[in-house]
Amino acid sequence: MRIGLVGAGNTAWQLGHHLAKNRVPLAYVTARNSSRLDELAAVLQCPRLAWGQDLPHCQGVLLCVSDDAIGEVSASACVKSDWMAHCSGSQRMDALRGNQSRGVFYPLQTMTWGRPLPAGSISICIEAASPEVETALLGLASACGFQSTVLDSPTRQKIHVAAVVVNNFVNHLLGKAEGLLQREGLPRELLFGLASETLLKYQSMGALQAQTGPARRGDGKIIGNHESMLAHDPELLAIYQSITQSIIKAHSL
Amino acid sequence: MRIGLVGAGNTAWQLGHHLAKNRVPLAYVTARNSSRLDELAAVLQCPRLAWGQDLPHCQGVLLCVSDDAIGEVSASACVKSDWMAHCSGSQRMDALRGNQSRGVFYPLQTMTWGRPLPAGSISICIEAASPEVETALLGLASACGFQSTVLDSPTRQKIHVAAVVVNNFVNHLLGKAEGLLQREGLPRELLFGLASETLLKYQSMGALQAQTGPARRGDGKIIGNHESMLAHDPELLAIYQSITQSIIKAHSL
Repeated sequence: MRIGLVGAGNTAWQLGHHLAKNRVPLAYVTARNSSRLDELAAVLQCPRLAWGQDLPHCQGVLLCVSDDAIGEVSASACVKSDWMAHCSGSQRMDALRGNQSRGVFYPLQTMTWGRPLPAGSISICIEAASPEVETALLGLASACGFQSTVLDSPTRQKIHVAAVVVNNFVNHLLGKAEGLLQREGLPRELLFGLASETLLKYQSMGALQAQTGPARRGDGKIIGNHESMLAHDPELLAIYQSITQSIIKAHSL
Repeated sequence: MRIGLVGAGNTAWQLGHHLAKNRVPLAYVTARNSSRLDELAAVLQCPRLAWGQDLPHCQGVLLCVSDDAIGEVSASACVKSDWMAHCSGSQRMDALRGNQSRGVFYPLQTMTWGRPLPAGSISICIEAASPEVETALLGLASACGFQSTVLDSPTRQKIHVAAVVVNNFVNHLLGKAEGLLQREGLPRELLFGLASETLLKYQSMGALQAQTGPARRGDGKIIGNHESMLAHDPELLAIYQSITQSIIKAHSL
């Protein structure tokens, strides 16, 4: 199975890394914005082709471009393949506008340029317009050692909300907590052990069982003290109040 | 240094476990509510004494009781020691009401009965009314292999807010995300890889650098779609909106 890779961002780097590592033949990598394309082609040891030229035919093309670019890039006549899949959690499969059979290959992960992830930490949400494309996408995930799940577009979009909560929101909370320490001149590393154990405990016990703290106990006095200590940061105060209310509600059912 | 342990909850279990493991002599463990006291004494292989009887004199006593009980328990004439320290993040040192020298020995961790933590994941926030008590508490932390930091009560109370954010709030978000998957009949384990990488990426890059997602990009269309998908859960919707606003604000400065 010869694959073409379109894009030169974090997702292209990560998926390309795993494809190359597992000797899936990469016909080329190309991108409209080419600032990191040379570097990516060198890492993947595959041809770097200019966007717009006639690209060689591949069995499949993975479109690792930003959400907004999926329509335009997929419609380009320069890409030739049996199927084309985008890698977005939030876009429907029919955001693709080319003539190829359509699919989605959405990695439920946060992708970082130059930061190779263990294959076991990557789950792929797969959608396909035909059984042939589904088989091809499942095979691609399997070749890389990824877990995979077949989901339709509406379901994947809901999973994408969950991914935003788990990654974007948790990261922001960790940053806000770190900010509280920095105000006191304390190193961020003080929180690392607690953050790690929070995750491990959640994984082994589940969130309901693992929940502790003033909101869980309904300790209004401590909650009031905390709110007064957050007067300097109205955004964090609003977050504090919304999550506290949600914990109270979840545990009073 | 002979230590007495008052309490038979999660914190008593965890601190007792590390004290016993590091052969710090435990004179006794006692508690007012004794439902798990027998089990704890057996685990720690130390005498289990009834609350209210004259307890043997110790150099130090660690009070691992709930916030509300610190005043009353510390005032009891049955406890005899040179110093007494409570283990609460949110209570001031002068919540202690006994005649002993006072201290605080607050583990910045989430404690779980029967779930021994690596010593390196436990940071102790120490406060002491005298240099002698400070030396004793630092020595106790060191004997267990814990990191320690000396902080006054107002600073520790702010750190406690950070701990609530990192533990209680992150746990709740993970549970909410899991709920979104469960509504679609998908297993919670799908999110584990993403949650782990979120933490590792935060630790190595810092939250500002690690931040991605629709709020970071100011992608109002995706945010609107997400909000409409959360109509079934007003609490999660309120959380979504407060954190999204906070991310937007943090990245527009």
